[in-house]
Amino acid sequence: MIIVKIGGSVFSDKDGEPENFDHETVRGLAEEIGRFYPAERFLIVHGGGSFGHHYAKKYGIREGLPEDFDVARERMIGFTRTHQAMLRANNNFLDHFLEVGIPAFPVATSSVFITENGEVAYGDVEVIKKLLKLRFVPVLFGDVSVDLAKGIDILSGDQIITYLAKMLNPKKVIFLMDVDGIYDGKPGEGRLLQNISVDEIDSLLERLDCSAKDVTGGICNKLREAKKIARFSEVWFVNGKIPGRLEGAIRGDGFGTRIVH
Amino acid sequence: MIIVKIGGSVFSDKDGEPENFDHETVRGLAEEIGRFYPAERFLIVHGGGSFGHHYAKKYGIREGLPEDFDVARERMIGFTRTHQAMLRANNNFLDHFLEVGIPAFPVATSSVFITENGEVAYGDVEVIKKLLKLRFVPVLFGDVSVDLAKGIDILSGDQIITYLAKMLNPKKVIFLMDVDGIYDGKPGEGRLLQNISVDEIDSLLERLDCSAKDVTGGICNKLREAKKIARFSEVWFVNGKIPGRLEGAIRGDGFGTRIVH
Repeated sequence: MIIVKIGGSVFSDKDGEPENFDHETVRGLAEEIGRFYPAERFLIVHGGGSFGHHYAKKYGIREGLPEDFDVARERMIGFTRTHQAMLRANNNFLDHFLEVGIPAFPVATSSVFITENGEVAYGDVEVIKKLLKLRFVPVLFGDVSVDLAKGIDILSGDQIITYLAKMLNPKKVIFLMDVDGIYDGKPGEGRLLQNISVDEIDSLLERLDCSAKDVTGGICNKLREAKKIARFSEVWFVNGKIPGRLEGAIRGDGFGTRIVH
Repeated sequence: MIIVKIGGSVFSDKDGEPENFDHETVRGLAEEIGRFYPAERFLIVHGGGSFGHHYAKKYGIREGLPEDFDVARERMIGFTRTHQAMLRANNNFLDHFLEVGIPAFPVATSSVFITENGEVAYGDVEVIKKLLKLRFVPVLFGDVSVDLAKGIDILSGDQIITYLAKMLNPKKVIFLMDVDGIYDGKPGEGRLLQNISVDEIDSLLERLDCSAKDVTGGICNKLREAKKIARFSEVWFVNGKIPGRLEGAIRGDGFGTRIVH
């Protein structure tokens, strides 16, 4: 089984109009996966892009729930509005997968995960396991979450993947991004690192600029999660915007960054 | 905590156009609940109406998954299409609840329940419990399900309620229908039974015509479930199409059928 993370920047322009969706790219990705399915099994996780982030920020979801119920109530309504936006993004993914003949099925992240300060504290993977056994392609997504410490929070797609990698033992995890992989420097600048050993990640994190971040963390968060995942599975970072790159990572001879243990 | 089941016939005309939705009725129900929230806590379950049933029937979901993968694959795609239709119905409910200031939040039935021949075999209520504690109004719905015996099946809203009543110990369960309650004879004909004791249900089921049924069972199924629920909770059947009836059942002096232990 291979886990594919479709980053928000791959299917959506975060700086563009709210809820913009790159249908052409996602259709292409569905087709690439379709060349290997059902011989190979897949699980998909997608990010928020211009869908979730806009609402998460607007309603201050990451700040959790305040004591004052009147203030909390407005934020609770925003919590649901954020989830509804994620369901709209998810629905677009489902349509593309179904149309190319892949039986994708959504599992609502917020229905099965509970966080504690944004980290997974509890996750129920029973339905996901059964779906995989039946040859469905489960689709999860970055989402709002009930949080043990703050009441509510956001659970990023990257963090879900770390949990799923532990629980489901995939042979490979592929992160799709809008750059060619991990660079020794700013994304798109410096030298592309085609192979990184797990032991090199800490020193790489020190060299990268990890201060600038979006609501769920950027490349540095991905690298930290990749370090955890690499204990269980091969990890790839490839450009999801360029046709054929996902296919290459699935085959194992593609262009991008591979994290080796 | 009060569980309110909004039957498919209350918000939708099953014989009408696919995906017709009675916005006026649902808005009214949201407003009635809003008169008691947050002093009273609620959990909502809605049925499929003209959303789910159409697809469930079209794709033969209740027949489960056949051995032949090419045939199964088409049905699996229909499984997701059925769920997508239920999410569209659910989204309408959420909009009405949020607009009257009730922080409703959806829990995807198919993400947390596993069935065995259409009965709940497994259910994870952790997120639902946490949502209730935070004063959210969880919203579940009749949905497709992963099934231990048949691969896939349908889980009706009524059956979810029996499970939730056991696990969550509500003080009251209110079934909203398009008739005034339970009749001693065909719905809308004969005498309305304002009080039924649990012990009378079996003999009543014998008198009713239980052969005609929709995809998830009609009044007979409701009565059978009510018999199970009544061990844990007071049960009401009231007309969800008539303003004020839900309110009456919440207060406890309303017009309809009350099942007493």
